[in-house]
Amino acid sequence: MTGHLYVIGLGPGDVQFRTGEAEAALADVAHVFGYKPYVARVAARAGLTRHASDNREEIDRAAAALTLAAAGEKVALVSGGDPGVFAMAAAACEAVEHGPAPWRTVPLTVVPGITAMLALAARVGAPLGHDFCAISLSDNLKPWDVIEMRLRAAARAGFAMAFYNPVSRARPWQLGRALDILREELPPTVPVIFGRAVTRPDEAIAIVPLADAISDMADMATCPIVGTAETRLVPRPDLPPLIYTPRTLAPAKVTP
Amino acid sequence: MTGHLYVIGLGPGDVQFRTGEAEAALADVAHVFGYKPYVARVAARAGLTRHASDNREEIDRAAAALTLAAAGEKVALVSGGDPGVFAMAAAACEAVEHGPAPWRTVPLTVVPGITAMLALAARVGAPLGHDFCAISLSDNLKPWDVIEMRLRAAARAGFAMAFYNPVSRARPWQLGRALDILREELPPTVPVIFGRAVTRPDEAIAIVPLADAISDMADMATCPIVGTAETRLVPRPDLPPLIYTPRTLAPAKVTP
Repeated sequence: MTGHLYVIGLGPGDVQFRTGEAEAALADVAHVFGYKPYVARVAARAGLTRHASDNREEIDRAAAALTLAAAGEKVALVSGGDPGVFAMAAAACEAVEHGPAPWRTVPLTVVPGITAMLALAARVGAPLGHDFCAISLSDNLKPWDVIEMRLRAAARAGFAMAFYNPVSRARPWQLGRALDILREELPPTVPVIFGRAVTRPDEAIAIVPLADAISDMADMATCPIVGTAETRLVPRPDLPPLIYTPRTLAPAKVTP
Repeated sequence: MTGHLYVIGLGPGDVQFRTGEAEAALADVAHVFGYKPYVARVAARAGLTRHASDNREEIDRAAAALTLAAAGEKVALVSGGDPGVFAMAAAACEAVEHGPAPWRTVPLTVVPGITAMLALAARVGAPLGHDFCAISLSDNLKPWDVIEMRLRAAARAGFAMAFYNPVSRARPWQLGRALDILREELPPTVPVIFGRAVTRPDEAIAIVPLADAISDMADMATCPIVGTAETRLVPRPDLPPLIYTPRTLAPAKVTP
């Protein structure tokens, strides 16, 4: 009997944004572990046990999944978005490294998904269309000084950026501070996009210049994207504007 | 008659890594435009005209697609990976901005896909598991000095990084120079992952320390990922190693 651990990205929410590979992996397992709202996205069926846990219990959850997989079960750990972007894939690898020896013998497959920043970018155009970075604003796992240093480095080097873990009840001031730092480094006109629950029924997207961006525009379900000094906002009649960061530092010639 | 332009991400290659949304959009159109190898991934069917073009003709391709969509046709522009990551979404937005007025009235939907760096990251663990950036090494569209500045900034700030457009016949030295720059900034033991044609039949993945990474390990179909000083390599008996960048700057305690 050979167990298997799948670490599966469920994408931004709407099942239409899941891959066939994710569906196939979910159909293959007897157990699903994950943060409650993600486990709730996996349909109940005979033969499937769903184990929902609280947020911030990533390592315990990975350990429970590995214990079952090492005992021969087929097990899924699910994440929203992509498991490799501030999600369960790193936690699973960490558990394998620091856990008991049998966990290293468990076949482990990470199944990628559409991560929040790319789902949001698609909704508004191509704000991450040139060099960009992804930064977690959570100072639970690294010191705030490191986050601040990375924000300044990314802004000065001209990267567009997306934020994960922007705000929570336990971390109320971090996003506001991040926006203040960026206002010291970037022009006030740089577009900031707040995308909440993208592809889900309660999707909401707001676009404001950096000068007007405030922390209250985001909650736990929001992915903020900050453009660069080159990012363009293209107004369209009767349609939302397109926002994109050009592929080039000089505008191209376009002929119909 | 209302036209529509879809800019669709086909994912890394294997159709199992496409989303349902991408399949639905492809089924809705009468025309598909794209770089030859991507158009070849879209199955022929009655009522579908496939327009394949050469690489580096992004703006002309977007213009042709917008012209047809503005005339009332349903049209797809396809990219490998995600269209918002160094691909057709920015080119389409650029064409809309600089093109004739009717193009701004065309409904435009960007359909995200699994981008190369996240497909590769999933194959080896979670090398992009903490703050990371994506950098194009092509100096066709921006000066090499900007690329060099961004490489140094990303390395000094502790970002993991993924490279797009790493090498081509016309750009033979850029990746080698980028690796030399990183050797000046990062420890020689930092893992570098060369992932070629991930999820396709000719997939090949090589993992080497930065000290040993050379440009010859990549071609046009390769996405190189460079870890950070914290990135871990976890050996496993009879399985390939796991590579991950920890979520935290201090190792977690793991109990089974």
